Amino acid sequence: MLPTAAYAAHEPRSPLAPFMIERREPGPDEVLIDILYCGVCHSDVHQARDEWGGAIFPMVPGHEIVGRVSRVGDAVQRFKVGDAVGVGCFVDSCRQCPQCLAGVEQHCALGMTATYNSREGNTGAPTYGGYSTQITVDEKYVLRMPEGMALDRAAPLLCAGATTYSPLRQFGAGPGHEVGVVGLGGLGHMAVKLAAAMGARVTVLSTSESKRPDALALGAHDFIATQDKNAFKSHAGRFDLILDTASAPHDYNAYLTLLKFNGTMVLLGIPEQPLPVAAGALIMQRRKLAGSLIAGIAETQEMLDFCGEHGIVSDIELIGMEQINEAYERMVRNDVRYRFVIDIATLAQNQ
Amino acid sequence: MLPTAAYAAHEPRSPLAPFMIERREPGPDEVLIDILYCGVCHSDVHQARDEWGGAIFPMVPGHEIVGRVSRVGDAVQRFKVGDAVGVGCFVDSCRQCPQCLAGVEQHCALGMTATYNSREGNTGAPTYGGYSTQITVDEKYVLRMPEGMALDRAAPLLCAGATTYSPLRQFGAGPGHEVGVVGLGGLGHMAVKLAAAMGARVTVLSTSESKRPDALALGAHDFIATQDKNAFKSHAGRFDLILDTASAPHDYNAYLTLLKFNGTMVLLGIPEQPLPVAAGALIMQRRKLAGSLIAGIAETQEMLDFCGEHGIVSDIELIGMEQINEAYERMVRNDVRYRFVIDIATLAQNQ
Repeated sequence: MLPTAAYAAHEPRSPLAPFMIERREPGPDEVLIDILYCGVCHSDVHQARDEWGGAIFPMVPGHEIVGRVSRVGDAVQRFKVGDAVGVGCFVDSCRQCPQCLAGVEQHCALGMTATYNSREGNTGAPTYGGYSTQITVDEKYVLRMPEGMALDRAAPLLCAGATTYSPLRQFGAGPGHEVGVVGLGGLGHMAVKLAAAMGARVTVLSTSESKRPDALALGAHDFIATQDKNAFKSHAGRFDLILDTASAPHDYNAYLTLLKFNGTMVLLGIPEQPLPVAAGALIMQRRKLAGSLIAGIAETQEMLDFCGEHGIVSDIELIGMEQINEAYERMVRNDVRYRFVIDIATLAQNQ
Repeated sequence: MLPTAAYAAHEPRSPLAPFMIERREPGPDEVLIDILYCGVCHSDVHQARDEWGGAIFPMVPGHEIVGRVSRVGDAVQRFKVGDAVGVGCFVDSCRQCPQCLAGVEQHCALGMTATYNSREGNTGAPTYGGYSTQITVDEKYVLRMPEGMALDRAAPLLCAGATTYSPLRQFGAGPGHEVGVVGLGGLGHMAVKLAAAMGARVTVLSTSESKRPDALALGAHDFIATQDKNAFKSHAGRFDLILDTASAPHDYNAYLTLLKFNGTMVLLGIPEQPLPVAAGALIMQRRKLAGSLIAGIAETQEMLDFCGEHGIVSDIELIGMEQINEAYERMVRNDVRYRFVIDIATLAQNQ
């Protein structure tokens, strides 16, 4: 076993603190990865604080992992030592159910093995995430980072990028398509970049007029401040697709009226409480309310390659591992543009 | 003008009562129809009682109209005197917007001209529905009744049939498809017959175990009593498509868990209040919540022809015009199997 420095939450209310874990030696199909950077997702905060229930402690969060291969198993075919690679939200799945066979492993019938706060299918051992110096993963669940991409700024692509890319593809975002993005946070800012690169006309909808300059700088073509209640009337029937990244309570029905005939609003954020939906808002222009969850391995690779071609990375604030608790506090206040990324070298140094 | 016997609501709380209206002489593209039967839709009750707001009184309800052509305009091409015809929920639309051009006139950008409780686009005159002895309609908005179909039992096809046929087609109901139907009323019983005829495996979900024999008799393959809360667990992930015809408050999220990966629940009923939707219920298996509104003219004709081929009509209780107020009371108590149809001959006799 390989002793590995990490940061862990030991119980829901304690700050994250240094913690030693063990990684397994890579099996025949596995690679060992030296982690360079790990993005900090909102779900890290929710899970470390056990806000979704069922948390497994001690917990080492982190599922936006970028690093370099440091060792490969005998049967590994796709990677060699030194390759820049990524690991996203899951590290295994059943590989046999219809969803796994269809490449939507995130919807595995037996449940994906999440990168952390989950249990390995065969041993039942808890999984530990990317707030750590290394990780052992089956090569089938490892992504290849495109040549020349800034690896620190690439880390959030593994979750935030995948989460927004997939619904844009599912619902055909492209030239002639009007895409609305609700909320300009970690997910929202990626949605803007990706949808614009796909050729869609992109509009950010935000409660805060103050975000207009940033939205336009990120590539949005238009901005709607949603405090202005006339906004919903004047933009009624405008969008083919709305990606709703907001998790604060908001009026789904008002946003649904912004959809064209046959348009779809995709929920990516998970508000704490279910929110009211008026049947009429869906019936009247044959609108749809959908959900989407990250992306499968093949689609995540497609997203990374797309980002490589279009020079897309995330806007980040790079932090040291010891700043993680402060970062969590700032994320709760939505005070981050647009994603914290941990420089894992700071963890290796201080252990 | 053509004096025409009708039944009207004169204000939201008054019973419907005899009322004389005038129909126009058919224009060049119009047909005059002697009405034989008119189905009684739940929306008749809601509108006659102004429960949806904006009601135009006096109101002559009725949009499940079957009759025979009694006169045709000079330019009429598709119909001749004596033809059995139907009129559904709308009698005109703008004919130029993308939706009209796409044959989904019910979603006309300028608003369809509803068969009653609406205003004609050119004159602004109120429209009067099928609780009357005759009606003048542009032939483009008139349906042809299939040869040999029982016309009294066919009347509810014009709304209840169209409303359920369209989403079954939109979402590909057919062999190998598991279709759930929530609620066994006017819409639900048509959904069962149509989905079964399309070759889908059909399951009725009803709060009332007592409806099981009827559901099976109508052609359902299975029945789930939803008071049994274990039902939702044991049938989780079962359906490709759920048609939700219920308008009483119910837990959308529980029904969403019954959908397979990528499954869709289509709302056809309009509960009085918006109901809570949990984002996670949509996100977790990429489920969709959709709405659907009646059907366009071409699709309504397709539905009628399909019913003709498969021997499908509605199960009805035929009533005299003077029984309409009693029928409304019974409908409010869900005491009808499954649709009241007015024998318009009783109106002609008693005027």
